[in-house]
Amino acid sequence: MQTELSQRLGIEHAVFGFTPFPAVAAAISRAGGLGVLGAVRYTDPGALARDLDWMDAHTGGRPYGLDVVMPAGRAEGVTEADVEAMIPDGHRSFVRDLLARHGVPELAAGDRRGWRITGWLEDVARAQLDAAFDHPLALLANALGPPPADVVQRAHAHGTLVAALAGSARHATRHADAGIDVVVAQGYEAGGHTGEIATMVLTPEIVRAVGPLPVLAAGGIGSGEQIAAGLALGAQGVWIGSLWLTTEEADLGSQALTAKLLAAGSGDTVRSRALSGKPARQLRTAWTEAWDDPSGPGPLPMPLQGLLVAEALTRIQKYEAAPLLGTPVGQIVGSMNSRRGVQAVFDDLTRGFDRAVARLDRIAARTGAPAAAGAPVGRAGPAADSPD
Amino acid sequence: MQTELSQRLGIEHAVFGFTPFPAVAAAISRAGGLGVLGAVRYTDPGALARDLDWMDAHTGGRPYGLDVVMPAGRAEGVTEADVEAMIPDGHRSFVRDLLARHGVPELAAGDRRGWRITGWLEDVARAQLDAAFDHPLALLANALGPPPADVVQRAHAHGTLVAALAGSARHATRHADAGIDVVVAQGYEAGGHTGEIATMVLTPEIVRAVGPLPVLAAGGIGSGEQIAAGLALGAQGVWIGSLWLTTEEADLGSQALTAKLLAAGSGDTVRSRALSGKPARQLRTAWTEAWDDPSGPGPLPMPLQGLLVAEALTRIQKYEAAPLLGTPVGQIVGSMNSRRGVQAVFDDLTRGFDRAVARLDRIAARTGAPAAAGAPVGRAGPAADSPD
Repeated sequence: MQTELSQRLGIEHAVFGFTPFPAVAAAISRAGGLGVLGAVRYTDPGALARDLDWMDAHTGGRPYGLDVVMPAGRAEGVTEADVEAMIPDGHRSFVRDLLARHGVPELAAGDRRGWRITGWLEDVARAQLDAAFDHPLALLANALGPPPADVVQRAHAHGTLVAALAGSARHATRHADAGIDVVVAQGYEAGGHTGEIATMVLTPEIVRAVGPLPVLAAGGIGSGEQIAAGLALGAQGVWIGSLWLTTEEADLGSQALTAKLLAAGSGDTVRSRALSGKPARQLRTAWTEAWDDPSGPGPLPMPLQGLLVAEALTRIQKYEAAPLLGTPVGQIVGSMNSRRGVQAVFDDLTRGFDRAVARLDRIAARTGAPAAAGAPVGRAGPAADSPD
Repeated sequence: MQTELSQRLGIEHAVFGFTPFPAVAAAISRAGGLGVLGAVRYTDPGALARDLDWMDAHTGGRPYGLDVVMPAGRAEGVTEADVEAMIPDGHRSFVRDLLARHGVPELAAGDRRGWRITGWLEDVARAQLDAAFDHPLALLANALGPPPADVVQRAHAHGTLVAALAGSARHATRHADAGIDVVVAQGYEAGGHTGEIATMVLTPEIVRAVGPLPVLAAGGIGSGEQIAAGLALGAQGVWIGSLWLTTEEADLGSQALTAKLLAAGSGDTVRSRALSGKPARQLRTAWTEAWDDPSGPGPLPMPLQGLLVAEALTRIQKYEAAPLLGTPVGQIVGSMNSRRGVQAVFDDLTRGFDRAVARLDRIAARTGAPAAAGAPVGRAGPAADSPD
């Protein structure tokens, strides 16, 4: 699975694996993909530096990347306290009542509260970058479009490619104009922040809009067959996030959450503003249902919603309040049904890709005169083309 | 593009083209695919018989199919008048006011009113079948799951394969149990009635659920690259509907509607219950916005909504009330930007498919040691893998 982009990055397979867990990211890079570590949970730049040191020691010299969450625009001088003050009391009591109804205990005095959202603030992201650029980053990805211009320049000076997620061709064009190197076409079926255009339509649309800039297909990719589909659409690689959540190397901090992911079907996710204020695909839970209920107050806009719910999400996770317990995840959650190591998952991806390409070769080679034009057809029997 | 299924049907390419227009269906069959004529607009079985006679004379002996809209369950003795009586007055006045607000004239005394929905009633569909089975149908497809058991038996006795649309693996399994021969996996991005699971995820899920029964990928397929993607996912063929709406052979009966389709982007569709009462993807218009507005009465359930709006839709179309004018269409509408003949469109499909397979072959062949493991990477330049 080598494209021009994977060759330029010096990786064996054009598989970009996003994950919040250093052990997963390192295993993806060791397996021949590009592990991309999510930085959003690191409020302490020192902790990020330590984990990147660990990555350097455990990737066997293979390249890896970092994913940050930075808005391209800046709101100078706005503090977390300023944003907190904009949250209506009615929303605070809605959160309090929802957790009380489900019997979720308060945090103890010493517990860390709400890391989930502070990583979204620009000063936190910049401190992350100061720590990160001491390391040999091959790729810097940003979940909210292009990072600020000075960050793009800094990455390029460091020899780091810059990638930005886009949910529409219009956004992708804007990202390309900002000087980034790779567009991640994030389809509707993807986990996390996502738009309404499905990967099958979005990928070629973005390839047309920004080519020859390389595009990664994201959303709905969890098998080698799906990788082949993404690359058939013109992508130079695939961006996979959800699939790693149930690997042995992943530490979700909750057995109950892992069990929910393994049990969930493709119809058990929802695109909801309940986590961050922007539509993000996640497990459908009592939490998303409460926020999406038209009789409730509804989610606040980003970044208010994220700040509002940060502590609540920490409590739900810590006390494993099963009905409320969720996570961003894509529709491929329906195929994530067993816990395996990253290498085993990766081996399946390469085998599935080879199988899909071989099948397409047979289908292409068979082109020619029909076998029995106009002849009546009988009841369908088993078909040898079926991949199973 | 030949699979076991296309070989069994005696067609050159595993491309199934759904269309309400005999001229389009015949041209698809002549081009080597399987034209599938939508029967829903034929309230007069005699008119359907005449059009099928025309198809027989204009497909050069190539196979074709018919698509009906039949519920699997029967509501014995329920007439159109019974259903009409269930429509609340408030909904009738909402329709009246909406059309008045947009200045849409009343129909004249002699005008045909509201053919769009009567084809959904079982007795109409059965009369259509009586006419259709006088013709050499290769495929009978049903948009609402498996047709009633006696219809499946009748099709099989006639040498006709039976296909049913499914939006989830659970529905597909139920369809397979009803003895059908082909499942059409209708993804979220498809035009018309559709579920929430995207084609990228739905297709392999249904292949796993019903294999070795053949599956067609539907939704998001409008190019050869997208055909390659659908087949990579394990499908035995693709089901394409939207793409033909802007061909020269199609007669939408409204220049304004054709112009809207040619101008629309992938983000200009919406999954709405405004046409039939069940979620169907269609152009986003003042009509869909009015029905989806939470301050309005909202759509009625199927089949009430279809009966309620039939005459209104006829008026909107006849008088080309541009803001209200819409049609079921999928997200690929964004790539339908020029009016061409069916054969030219088909040639593009086969060329794009060959190009995608050749590109995948190159990507697969390149697998091996990385070119420059661990080396720093520079600013991205043009990439030769880009399909454009």
